[in-house]
Amino acid sequence: MRKVILYIAQSLDGYIAKKDGNLDWLPQEISEKMNKFYSDFSQQVDTVLMGRKTYDQIVNVLSPNQWAYPNKTSYVWTSTKTESLENSVHFMDTDLVSFVKELKEQEGKNIWVLGGGSFIAELVKNNLIDEYSITIVPVILGEGIPLFPKDNKNTIFLKMQVCFEENGMIQTSYTVEL
Amino acid sequence: MRKVILYIAQSLDGYIAKKDGNLDWLPQEISEKMNKFYSDFSQQVDTVLMGRKTYDQIVNVLSPNQWAYPNKTSYVWTSTKTESLENSVHFMDTDLVSFVKELKEQEGKNIWVLGGGSFIAELVKNNLIDEYSITIVPVILGEGIPLFPKDNKNTIFLKMQVCFEENGMIQTSYTVEL
Repeated sequence: MRKVILYIAQSLDGYIAKKDGNLDWLPQEISEKMNKFYSDFSQQVDTVLMGRKTYDQIVNVLSPNQWAYPNKTSYVWTSTKTESLENSVHFMDTDLVSFVKELKEQEGKNIWVLGGGSFIAELVKNNLIDEYSITIVPVILGEGIPLFPKDNKNTIFLKMQVCFEENGMIQTSYTVEL
Repeated sequence: MRKVILYIAQSLDGYIAKKDGNLDWLPQEISEKMNKFYSDFSQQVDTVLMGRKTYDQIVNVLSPNQWAYPNKTSYVWTSTKTESLENSVHFMDTDLVSFVKELKEQEGKNIWVLGGGSFIAELVKNNLIDEYSITIVPVILGEGIPLFPKDNKNTIFLKMQVCFEENGMIQTSYTVEL
């Protein structure tokens, strides 16, 4: 079955962005090995899920000239639906949990959960993430948007699949232990 | 100059203990390489600092029969001073930050900051930690006592010194980038 993978970078103290969404603490240069890990991951993915703030950040800041994931189907959860400029981008206001459960039953490659915080929280709390590929960045941000929800009562035990370090960044990949 | 080192294990989502202080999620078996890293670290330490809850947990749960750090000088911060049963254990109610600053100026080996959460927070916020040796445990606890303070406004950039993985646990050691 296709897997739902959370692939994201967090600070050592567990934030994915500063409070205002700022990502200026992420290293500009990524090593060849980490790039290769990302590109191998990306080739196994055909679907990208994200919340509205993450989408806005991608189109306004990170990749304003062209849609960042042109060869994948993107689903963006939002309460204010707008016209999509890309055929591959779908704005959604249906129930996230039911949608992801259905998506997992369909044929296809893996599904990438991109962010942000509250969007990820909903999936973590409902045990819908199959794999956590976390890049741990050597910085303590002190405050920001936490990767993991603070009101999750489930302890999730993980099994390490990948771990390597380059330039102070640790690339991990864990599967969920059932 | 002697260094102040925070050496502790955290879950992938940044907790050092469950809400009630429970540590049952820590692996029972530690690999030989990780034990060697700990024993090398321990030999470079002559002073241990901790808060009262951590002390109580050590004497009541973790090591009830003998004091866990007999060959080091231990300082325990508490608002309710009690008689110490060990000559090497000192209960303190003076200002933690000034005390640690003075301690760093004195001759001696390294200083180990043991925990818990609010005790560590005070030192992190005052930039008094020189080295972070964090063992990252493959579990998402969901809730608990966070390692890093949530109201720290300082971004602390780190430089990786050590990183290795065994049995799913990642042993890191970072120095603070000035």
